[in-house]
Amino acid sequence: MRVEREKRTIIEPKVLKGFRDFLPSMEIPKKAIVNKLEEHFSLYGFVPIDTPVLEYTEVLLGKGGGETDKQIFHFLDNGERDVAMRFDLTVPFARFLALHQNELAFPFKRFHINKVWRGENPQKGRYREFTQCDFDIVGADNAEADYEILAMMESSFQVMGVTDFKFSVAHRGLFNAFLTHLGVEEKSTEILRIVDKLKKIGTDEVSALLKECTGTKEKAEDILSYINVENPDEPFLTTLERLSSLAGGEIEHTARMKAIYGYLSDAGIEDHFTLDPSITRGLDYYTGIVYETFLTELPHFGSVCSGGRYNDLASLYTKEQLPGVGSSIGLDRLLAALEELESPVIQRASSSDLIILCLDESLRSWYDQLARRFRSEGIRTDAYLLNKKMGAQFKYAEANHIPYGLSCGTLEKSAGKVTLKNLKTREMHQMISIEEAISIIKRN
Amino acid sequence: MRVEREKRTIIEPKVLKGFRDFLPSMEIPKKAIVNKLEEHFSLYGFVPIDTPVLEYTEVLLGKGGGETDKQIFHFLDNGERDVAMRFDLTVPFARFLALHQNELAFPFKRFHINKVWRGENPQKGRYREFTQCDFDIVGADNAEADYEILAMMESSFQVMGVTDFKFSVAHRGLFNAFLTHLGVEEKSTEILRIVDKLKKIGTDEVSALLKECTGTKEKAEDILSYINVENPDEPFLTTLERLSSLAGGEIEHTARMKAIYGYLSDAGIEDHFTLDPSITRGLDYYTGIVYETFLTELPHFGSVCSGGRYNDLASLYTKEQLPGVGSSIGLDRLLAALEELESPVIQRASSSDLIILCLDESLRSWYDQLARRFRSEGIRTDAYLLNKKMGAQFKYAEANHIPYGLSCGTLEKSAGKVTLKNLKTREMHQMISIEEAISIIKRN
Repeated sequence: MRVEREKRTIIEPKVLKGFRDFLPSMEIPKKAIVNKLEEHFSLYGFVPIDTPVLEYTEVLLGKGGGETDKQIFHFLDNGERDVAMRFDLTVPFARFLALHQNELAFPFKRFHINKVWRGENPQKGRYREFTQCDFDIVGADNAEADYEILAMMESSFQVMGVTDFKFSVAHRGLFNAFLTHLGVEEKSTEILRIVDKLKKIGTDEVSALLKECTGTKEKAEDILSYINVENPDEPFLTTLERLSSLAGGEIEHTARMKAIYGYLSDAGIEDHFTLDPSITRGLDYYTGIVYETFLTELPHFGSVCSGGRYNDLASLYTKEQLPGVGSSIGLDRLLAALEELESPVIQRASSSDLIILCLDESLRSWYDQLARRFRSEGIRTDAYLLNKKMGAQFKYAEANHIPYGLSCGTLEKSAGKVTLKNLKTREMHQMISIEEAISIIKRN
Repeated sequence: MRVEREKRTIIEPKVLKGFRDFLPSMEIPKKAIVNKLEEHFSLYGFVPIDTPVLEYTEVLLGKGGGETDKQIFHFLDNGERDVAMRFDLTVPFARFLALHQNELAFPFKRFHINKVWRGENPQKGRYREFTQCDFDIVGADNAEADYEILAMMESSFQVMGVTDFKFSVAHRGLFNAFLTHLGVEEKSTEILRIVDKLKKIGTDEVSALLKECTGTKEKAEDILSYINVENPDEPFLTTLERLSSLAGGEIEHTARMKAIYGYLSDAGIEDHFTLDPSITRGLDYYTGIVYETFLTELPHFGSVCSGGRYNDLASLYTKEQLPGVGSSIGLDRLLAALEELESPVIQRASSSDLIILCLDESLRSWYDQLARRFRSEGIRTDAYLLNKKMGAQFKYAEANHIPYGLSCGTLEKSAGKVTLKNLKTREMHQMISIEEAISIIKRN
């Protein structure tokens, strides 16, 4: 038999470049975070949706072309249809809204946490398959909706055990008003993209690019003075007044930002929010407030949660105007950040709370009965399945980070007792009742 | 502006044939079931994994070709690699085991709930994108592992609120021993596939096919008498004795089945298990116990959870022998079944427990404060975001199946009170405290 197997060709069990397996040590914390977020979004009345991984290429790419086009996984299926794997959750959501608008109650508040695919060149921390977490409110163009997204973002970071974070917000409408006031509105898309690079390439290079784009040194300097907050401690409303006057005076956007800030203050969470006019979010479709999220202790991670208001997202697919505001978390990057921050949310990579050791093969049914009892108390209980030496069983428990071991021989069984061992501290509780064991495990 | 929009080409927001969106009314119950199952599997010490959606076609198809080949979504990526979307969770798991065997602690107990894709022709209830839920124990070839999978299946149906179900089990090793005893072992693959069709095509046609395959009427009749249980109430162990003697006497497989049945009896769950020798699970790789699950009230659904023992699954990718036993739930089909059974698990398609109605636009911040208070109690609370008439607000609540509405005007606010309305029974609780409102909502 052995000989025959040796001769058989073995296929190398490799995965594609830019793709990866999630072993339990990564998948357990990832699921913990997803569950936390889903539960939290539900508290705000947000509901989950899902869309197909494959869509017509024309439907997904209608919006863009350009760089995305080359990065998309697309092909002809067996029916010669040009199909593509979704590269974000925003475009499918726009298509979803257009298709189902008559089945949904507005304002529609949805979240969508799932994988997307891009063929970009894999590099450190960048994958071709990654998970996004999007949440949006559609059908409410007001400060209340803008505020609700910001407030839910703020509390999401709190429930994930992150306390040192900062939201940088700005208003695209206000910036556009400023550019119009300056007479460079026809260059606005290009200017937005240049400004978006500020944190990456620095003020000098942005200044040079702006000069090239606007044609004059003065306009470049005006734009720089708009986006630069010289005093980082300048109060939100002071910055807002300054920007407002640079944009030619009070306009609806200023009023909207004031109202949003009012709600943040009333909720007592305004300290987490900074007005940073250099935030533009390169993408065309934003029309109102925009924001990015930075972890104070891990600035090199960049923004871990970004978004804004778009007032015509689904316009490719419907003539109905559907105003929305939303945000997106790059879950893999956030997971890496939480790992670095040693967040308590991801410290539970143990497979079980308790392992029932196999001391005596003839007591299997009793071990199973014990396991069922502990499970009925919500204690995750693994009954070791092999008849191996104790050393091997402890090694298994250690590899799975199981904190408690329970052993029970015929003596314990006949006395209705068990012996519980804390596998980390090595503390032993000999000949205790099952109820005592349950309460010890639950205390920890 | 309107004119300009009318002129723009609208892309039809269609989805591909065989694919579908999950609206909240379906995604909420689906998530509820997935969460229930994941939590339940965790109680047994099972851990989650995930694998890439795309793999090398050669890696995924090494096993098969044949029918699967045509049904698979595969293409050349931008790097000219032949890549494919996974069509089940078993093959990627075998590849995963081979690649990571040195990083895992055995017995390795994993679950994997995720989507798979097949290009089969869509028909009623069949989709090209569907969700599977697999759970397996690898590295333990004994009755304890076989039993644990069966016991976890049994309790999984219990936690899903299904009580009328039946597991039909058989043993492939025993059947093979019987075929060897009969002298037709070289036809075993074909015979297994024929027998697997019994429930679909009936005894007469199976008999004809068996005669054609084995060449003699006698052998066909012998096989039929092996797989047919004339008395459906025949006790498990009586059937086992009969099959065992037909297979030429006591062998290890009989002993294994006896041990498994012993554990089921000790746990008091043996009534859910029937020995049905016609269960073969067509697939080649099973070597031991095999099983299917039928919902007594919905026999037309076929098996909703099937699997068995395979002792050499990863042999394509590694010379290491990795014995396993596992099971797979077709989640979309199960979901449809639970809907038909009106399982309590899926009766929660409401987006929220409570809606805070917008009675007075000037009290927005107070409504937000109320919402935060209710959420801190774990009550899913939606604060209505628009300033619309009450009729529109109630319609929104109804569309979202929200059971409670809270209204609060300046009068209530200054008295520190609220008015709570049960939106189904129309029962009103006027001018009650926030604490009273919390306890009324929690009571339901």
